This record gives sequence, C-alpha cells and structure tokens, in this order.
Amino acid sequence: MSDIHPASVPESFPMNGGDGTYSYTKNSVYQKAASDVAKEMIDEAITEKLEIKILTATSNTLRIADLGCAVGPNTFMTMQNVLQAIERKYQNQALTSKMPEFQVFFNDHAANDFNTLFASLPPDRQYFAAGVPGSFYDRLFPESSLHLVHSSHALQWLSKVPEGLLDKNSPAWNNRRIFYTTASNEVFNAYEAQFIKDMEVFLKARAEEIVVGGLMVLILPALPDGIHHSQLPVGLLFDFLASSLRDMVNEGLMNEAQLDSFNLPVYAPSPKEMALQVERNGCFSVERMELTDPTSKIDGPVDARKLIMHLRAGMEGVFSKHFGHEIVAEMFERSLGKSAKLSSLLESSCMKGTQLFLVLKRK
Amino acid sequence: MSDIHPASVPESFPMNGGDGTYSYTKNSVYQKAASDVAKEMIDEAITEKLEIKILTATSNTLRIADLGCAVGPNTFMTMQNVLQAIERKYQNQALTSKMPEFQVFFNDHAANDFNTLFASLPPDRQYFAAGVPGSFYDRLFPESSLHLVHSSHALQWLSKVPEGLLDKNSPAWNNRRIFYTTASNEVFNAYEAQFIKDMEVFLKARAEEIVVGGLMVLILPALPDGIHHSQLPVGLLFDFLASSLRDMVNEGLMNEAQLDSFNLPVYAPSPKEMALQVERNGCFSVERMELTDPTSKIDGPVDARKLIMHLRAGMEGVFSKHFGHEIVAEMFERSLGKSAKLSSLLESSCMKGTQLFLVLKRK
Repeated sequence: MSDIHPASVPESFPMNGGDGTYSYTKNSVYQKAASDVAKEMIDEAITEKLEIKILTATSNTLRIADLGCAVGPNTFMTMQNVLQAIERKYQNQALTSKMPEFQVFFNDHAANDFNTLFASLPPDRQYFAAGVPGSFYDRLFPESSLHLVHSSHALQWLSKVPEGLLDKNSPAWNNRRIFYTTASNEVFNAYEAQFIKDMEVFLKARAEEIVVGGLMVLILPALPDGIHHSQLPVGLLFDFLASSLRDMVNEGLMNEAQLDSFNLPVYAPSPKEMALQVERNGCFSVERMELTDPTSKIDGPVDARKLIMHLRAGMEGVFSKHFGHEIVAEMFERSLGKSAKLSSLLESSCMKGTQLFLVLKRK
Repeated sequence: MSDIHPASVPESFPMNGGDGTYSYTKNSVYQKAASDVAKEMIDEAITEKLEIKILTATSNTLRIADLGCAVGPNTFMTMQNVLQAIERKYQNQALTSKMPEFQVFFNDHAANDFNTLFASLPPDRQYFAAGVPGSFYDRLFPESSLHLVHSSHALQWLSKVPEGLLDKNSPAWNNRRIFYTTASNEVFNAYEAQFIKDMEVFLKARAEEIVVGGLMVLILPALPDGIHHSQLPVGLLFDFLASSLRDMVNEGLMNEAQLDSFNLPVYAPSPKEMALQVERNGCFSVERMELTDPTSKIDGPVDARKLIMHLRAGMEGVFSKHFGHEIVAEMFERSLGKSAKLSSLLESSCMKGTQLFLVLKRK
C-alpha cells in the first residue's frame, strides 16, 4: 500500500512507526494524495467492470485479495472502499439478490508483521479476514478462487536484485550507484529483464487464481511512454541519496564495497511495457490503463524536503538493513541539507503522470 | 492443538517456548500420545466419511480449517496427516480425477503469534496457507466454504469465565477455588450453562460455514458418562494447584482476593452432554463419538510430576497473566514438592477415557 513497501523482496522492511518526525504517519502526504486518486478509479472499475451477478452465480461469496498489504491502515481503507463500491452498485442497480458475503485475503511476505495487521483489523468490518503469507511471485491461492485482486505500490518491487549488478566482471556492474537512473544501459537492461521475468511469473500465477470475469487492479509507479528512464522522479531521488553515500565514501566515512553491493530491486515500467507483458500472458484484457498524477492534488510545487522525509519514513528499513542505522541517518541528513539541489533536479524531470493505474479482467 | 491452549478466550497465552526444563517441547509426552491416537482416528474418518468427489463437484479446491491452531508444530503435523489421508484415498480408490488443491486456514485468536506460525510453515507444504484471526465462538468464514474442520484440545476453553463466579453475592461465588471440581453445585451449574451457551454459538457458526457433506473432527478432554465431575483428572490437577495457592494465602504470601478473582474458563463435557448439544443444533449427524485413553500409549503408571510439568509448559501463561510470574513459579514448585499426594488422588480418579473424539457431518 506504499510506494516504498518491498512486498516482493524476500524480506519485509516495515515503514517507520509511531508519529515522530520521521514516522510514516507524519510523512505520507503524497501517499494520501495517491490513495485519493486511486479511490475514485477503483470505484469506477467496480461500478463499470465488475459483473457481480455472474461472479456469484455458483457461490454467494466474493473473494478479494490485497497483494503487498503491509500492516495497514491503508489496506483497510482500500478494502472498505471496495466493499462500499460493491454495496452502492447493489443499491443503484436495485439488485434484489442477497448481498454476497466477502472474504478478504491480506497478503504480504511471511516476514510482514501480521500480528500488528490482525490486531488493527477494523472491529466493524463487513468481511471475513484472512492473512496469506508469501511472495506474489508465486502461487498464493487455489485456482479460480479470487474475484477481485488489488495491489497498490507493491508490484514495482522486483523479486530480487537483477543479475550482474553485483558482479565486478559483468558489464551490468552497478558500481557506486544504487539504481538504474543514471547508470549504464547494461544496468538498465538487467533491471528491465528482471521486470519482464517477474511479470511473467506474476501474471501466470494470478491468471490461475482469478476466476473468469474477475478483476485485477494494479497501481504502481511508472514512466510515461517516450520518456527516458533517466527522467524518472523516484529514480532521481534514489540517485540523489546515492550521491550522499558517494560523498561519504569519498570522505572515508564508509567503505566503497558497501555502496557497490547495494542496489534497490525496484522498477517503474512504462504503460507500453506493461501492456506488452499483459499481452504476452494472454489471459487478461486491459479494461483501463492510465497514468495519473497524484501530486496534482497537492497545492503548490513539490517540496523536495517533504519528498525526502516521505522516502525516509517508508524506506529507511531497506537501507538500514544493508548500511546500518548510523550511515543511513547521515545519508538522509546530508540529503535534506542539500534539498534545494533536488528541487532543481526534479523541476527538469517528468513529475506529471508517474502513477500507473491498471484494470485487467480475466478472460 | 494443546489441551492447554485457550483458543477460545479473548487472549492468547502461548505455551512455554524453547527447550528448557519448563518448555512445552520437553514436557509434551501426553500431548504426543494424544496426537498419535487422534491421527489414526482422523485417517479413518477421512477414509470412511469424507466424500471428496461430491465435495469437489463444483470446484477443485478442498478448504480445511484448524480451529485453535496455536503456533505449531502440532497443527502442521495434523494438516499433513489430513492431506496424506486424502491422497491415499485417491490412490486406493484409483480416482482418475485431478487431485484437488488444498487451502488450509489456521485459526486462533488475533493475539496468537501468527508471525511465528507463518515463519514456521513447512516449506514443502502441499497446500495454500492462510491465517484467520478471531474467536471460534463467532463466524470466521463465508457460508458453505469449508469442507473439513479440525479442532484439537481447544473447544474445552469457554468463551469467558461463567457468570456469578466472581460475585461475592452470587450462590455461584467460587471463593478460594479456580475450577469446578471440588466446588459447589451452583459453581458447576454456572460452568455447564456457559458450556451450553458456547456450544450453541459454536455449532451454529460452523453449520453456516461447512458445506453439506463436510466433516468436523473435534478432540477435547471429556468426562465419561455417569462419572461425577469431581472425578475429572484435569480438574483434580487444577484443584491441586489451587491448594498450593490456598497455602500461600494462608501463609500471607498472597492476597485472598487475588485467588478469589481467578477461575479457569475450561469445561470438559460428557459424551452425552456433547451429543445433546449436537442434537439441539440439528445440522450435524454424529458419525463417530468415542472416548479414548491417550495414556494407554504410555508405558507404566501416570507420573504426577510429569503431569504437573506438562501443565506448567502449557498453562503457565494463563496463570502468570493473573498472578504474576513469582507466585506462579512458587505454586508449581510447591505442587511438584507434594506430587506424591497428587499421585494418590489421581489413582482414585477416572484416568481412563477422558479424551473425546467426535466426527460430525454437515447434514
């Protein structure tokens, strides 16, 4: 449910808790804006595309899954929106049949904090809740058992760091960088190849699990068609953090090998790339594919400091796991200190329309 | 999965971890013996009573739930046994249809440690796993969604301490006791009334969730028909622990009110009582109902010290939550010190056939 939750990597890095300066709660204005945009579009998808009568022909249960749910509360709000949209549909269409029962499966890695998720389930929920541990780059559910699948800001996480990036003798060796934005073509190609492999596995698994006529709503960061990947805002942000790490290497505060051995397993595809993978899979029709701009909901220009704080709240864990807390704290402090530079970098980047909203229907 | 796991009380008291002197691992010989007896009977129930072909007529998925699963590993072994029994049935009957897919729901209170459960799921499992948080004295699953429900040593936990036990002005006030074994008739009646209420709710919920033809296997401690409840071995054991607490009150080591305000919300029904509740519910046929004697699998006489250690491994948490660790450690030490007295108490009790094995089929 967050653009920074690594729901597809073998380990789980929870967002910063509490409500302090660096907490996710205090630093999620962009996340909130993205949710608002998505909410309207999910409502429309359910109203226009979900044929409930057909889906509940053999059983009166609608099964819904949220892939990469983290610990809430966003997943709960989304599921509530989904249920309300279905209920509205029943009322508006004056459907006389019994309202279906809902079973909601919350999925994330086994290392996700399901205890916290379960403890914070809304007491007044109108659905039967279940937690499903495991990577979505694998089968998670029985065949033809799901009617609606939702995944928000999770699918950009690759199943692993692409091959070659850590190998000094590979043309894709990504030394002194942590991402593909400013890297060589070979590095970008390695990321792209991993994305293609992962999407093949993801779509094949979901095609088996989703009933014919079932919907899948995917929301993830993306690169507009025709824009070079060096323009990806989140990539510029990652590279901006990497520049602070490089400075620290140059000042002898950390080891070069430590920097070389870290890469973020994240990929933001273009709509064209995504459509190609859906076509190759062959089991889904594209019902809607649109780039949205969550920042348009926020007044005034994008605030570079806020962006850094937002990233810290969500991704500090991913970095800390590799670099340790001290280096990561220093990295964020240094990056905040030169945030004006990030502002000008972002001005020249493509800030508009970098959230992909995709509705697929199982053929 | 343990006779001491309070799967039905609002909070979860996990068994003692690790492999030390008081660990569940080192003190579960009776539990193991009970499992072995149950395994054979579950095998038979599946072989003789589960009509897989009918159950998988509309979908190729078999949905199985374990209610009161705790954190493993017993629940995993039981589920593996269940799956193997179904697979054998396919092979023996030379069923030509595709083996069904299995979805296993592990249920326990939301406060159960699902993180540990999920982390220890067998990597080679042949089923899709899900965790379902919540009390089984409530609906947990959509209607007609389960084919096989299993619950071992969980259903003896009442949903709450029976009314009146804590009220000085009630005839059911259970002062200086923690259970009904040696208590007044009013206390026993309050326990029995709570059991009847809870079973009504439990059977109603399961009747809604289990498909017609689906099975429910229940294993719980019980009192043989015609035996007075003062003869219940586990009750004698509880009262033996209470006697140590009473000594400590008399010696001024703890407060009398502290003892008066604690009661174990546990009830061991007779087969007759259980059959009556099933009949009142009306949705299930009794396919098998049998008292078994797990201790018959253990060589030699029942060892009172081992029983106390076993109870400590499983129930220390329930006591500690109320009394604090120091008092509980002292209670167990004192009880171990006079275990010879428990041995003679148990000799005069009804040690044979106090495990109820019940197979119900949804009509």
